[in-house]
Amino acid sequence: MKISSFHPPQRTLMGPGPSDVNPRILEAMSRPTIGHLDPEFVRMMDEMKELLQYAFQTKNKMTMPISAPGSAGMECCFVNLVEPGDKVIVCQNGVFGGRMKENVVRSGGIVIHVDDEWGQAVNPTKLEDALKANPDAKLVAFVHAETSTGVVSDAKLLVELAHRYNCLTIVDTVTSLGGIPVLVDEWGIDAIYSGSQKCLSCTPGLSPVSFNKAAVDKISQRKHPVQSWFLDLNLVMGYWGEGAKRAYHHTAPINALYALHEALVILQEEGLETAWERHQKNHQALRNGIEAMGLKFIAKENERLPQLNTVTIPEGVDDATVRNKLLQDYNLEIGAGLGALAGKAWRIGLMGHASNKTNVLLFLGALDSILTGAGANINSGVAVQAALDYYA
Amino acid sequence: MKISSFHPPQRTLMGPGPSDVNPRILEAMSRPTIGHLDPEFVRMMDEMKELLQYAFQTKNKMTMPISAPGSAGMECCFVNLVEPGDKVIVCQNGVFGGRMKENVVRSGGIVIHVDDEWGQAVNPTKLEDALKANPDAKLVAFVHAETSTGVVSDAKLLVELAHRYNCLTIVDTVTSLGGIPVLVDEWGIDAIYSGSQKCLSCTPGLSPVSFNKAAVDKISQRKHPVQSWFLDLNLVMGYWGEGAKRAYHHTAPINALYALHEALVILQEEGLETAWERHQKNHQALRNGIEAMGLKFIAKENERLPQLNTVTIPEGVDDATVRNKLLQDYNLEIGAGLGALAGKAWRIGLMGHASNKTNVLLFLGALDSILTGAGANINSGVAVQAALDYYA
Repeated sequence: MKISSFHPPQRTLMGPGPSDVNPRILEAMSRPTIGHLDPEFVRMMDEMKELLQYAFQTKNKMTMPISAPGSAGMECCFVNLVEPGDKVIVCQNGVFGGRMKENVVRSGGIVIHVDDEWGQAVNPTKLEDALKANPDAKLVAFVHAETSTGVVSDAKLLVELAHRYNCLTIVDTVTSLGGIPVLVDEWGIDAIYSGSQKCLSCTPGLSPVSFNKAAVDKISQRKHPVQSWFLDLNLVMGYWGEGAKRAYHHTAPINALYALHEALVILQEEGLETAWERHQKNHQALRNGIEAMGLKFIAKENERLPQLNTVTIPEGVDDATVRNKLLQDYNLEIGAGLGALAGKAWRIGLMGHASNKTNVLLFLGALDSILTGAGANINSGVAVQAALDYYA
Repeated sequence: MKISSFHPPQRTLMGPGPSDVNPRILEAMSRPTIGHLDPEFVRMMDEMKELLQYAFQTKNKMTMPISAPGSAGMECCFVNLVEPGDKVIVCQNGVFGGRMKENVVRSGGIVIHVDDEWGQAVNPTKLEDALKANPDAKLVAFVHAETSTGVVSDAKLLVELAHRYNCLTIVDTVTSLGGIPVLVDEWGIDAIYSGSQKCLSCTPGLSPVSFNKAAVDKISQRKHPVQSWFLDLNLVMGYWGEGAKRAYHHTAPINALYALHEALVILQEEGLETAWERHQKNHQALRNGIEAMGLKFIAKENERLPQLNTVTIPEGVDDATVRNKLLQDYNLEIGAGLGALAGKAWRIGLMGHASNKTNVLLFLGALDSILTGAGANINSGVAVQAALDYYA
């Protein structure tokens, strides 16, 4: 054995995440490590909370990053809010709704299924039917922006329905936060989690979460202890809580938190509304190019995420061959289809820092060239100009 | 609101972790983010496994870093190995043994207590008594190097005893790995976890773990599903497993893994034996200085960790005042006592990159000056020379 330092290539990240990381964030991550109880670090934690409250558009005191990836943020919401025997309505329209069901079962809850086809938004009528049929349901959980299909669901309406039937809500905003509106207080979301590596453009590994008073009350009134020690919010808040004495719970991932802080400072500088507009604009340009080629989106027009474009692979074209060519010749990563969409769709991310004109033009030019070379049945040589026309 | 970029001060980290991070590691962490399924990243993962096998001195195939801090590595061991109703003997001689008990209970297991005083090693006779009294026990868990007291226990002997009575073992080596011998295969440890931010000198946030065949067999034969989705090794290994297709489980913390890879490359360059000797040498120099001052160690001589020195606070001296002065005047962090030792002891880390002559001399000079200034009853002005004499 003799292993040397690892020097990764410079890629353009247009998959479902991680997305391109702003160089400012990488630099912030390499600043000197300090202790997790250092007064300077504690000051940074206070700022982090304020920055996350802005990103989530909430005044929730219980707002902080979980020291692990989005999947752990999801698990944090379920293990804290689900008690053994609780009925939980899970709306599934892609991979991540399925993961929510796993979490309910492992937390001792009972899943009530509300299933929609992959590639469609969660159907509010189906949710309301399930709420009517299960008056003892305690929670409703759904994914706002399904990373596996590129579909957005109407979070505001789904939360409203859940509340009408006295359920609390757990909402996955891993892919939506920073890319499209996520209005925690205005929509009344009770528990929410996200990820650092999507539209916040940070490195992967952290999961911002927020809980309102109703959620905190349910957690503090639990009859059974939270099954996870690491994710038990009663303990985590001893460290992250407002005015808390910053009691040691676990060693915080210091440098990863520097990175998230910087990502949120950048978001604050740009402004949420401007960031949402930018995601929308680059999506439109990409869409013009994609449609000019003759390719089709999986999601219906009014249910499309601007930050995650799921496009049907043309007949006769091999999924992996195209993605490998993009990676090898262009250093450009896009995502494969997951689950039901494996081999049938590409997932093209325009998230956070990666949502820019250069990326749109690079990708369209590359895809045009590769598909033309492979003899695919597309309109060749027009995609890039179609995007440029949109920007003009 | 208008929050700016966070610029941490440059500290010398001589607490119980995080320890000083080698600048090479900080630089590695800021390299370009690539995808968690990128072939180049997958190659790095293979190297990571090999480097961790070296650090742990094991051939275990199930060896990898958990994407979260050491506490999550601990939880990973317990939720995977403990089934509801399992009797687990936990040897506690400090804070972290207590955390193990919490994990057993939350995993549905039954704790058999083997308690030793804080500041003493785990007593093998007490463990054997517990094993005899509980022939149906399934697991023995203990902390090799108690971060709260600076005490090392005889891991080899404790594992041997556990095996003699047909128990598997879970061993916490958060503070020992890289600082003193941890010989997983030779000692027969079944499940082990560590942390990135102690003697590996990496940034906090990852937990290397390793499981031998007996542990893997118990996990694959479980009757109840693992209660944590995020930490379920049956799923995690789909991504980290040998020859696996690298099935997506969760998004790996890419840049944090670059950092750990670099930390392990540095360890491999130095060599484990050399690293152990260095920790021993700097501990001896520190000890000479501490004892020349007239201060005392909490741990008995043959039970002391070279990387974590727990020293009694002299009578009439205020704990926090001294630590604050060290931080403010010297940018130097040491640790407070935890639990039973709060206010009674300091924890002085000499871990990984921080275990060096400059740190020893800086700290001794600083402590000498502060205690002398406070009128403490010590031998003033002799500590630094005593350490220098040792190095000479």
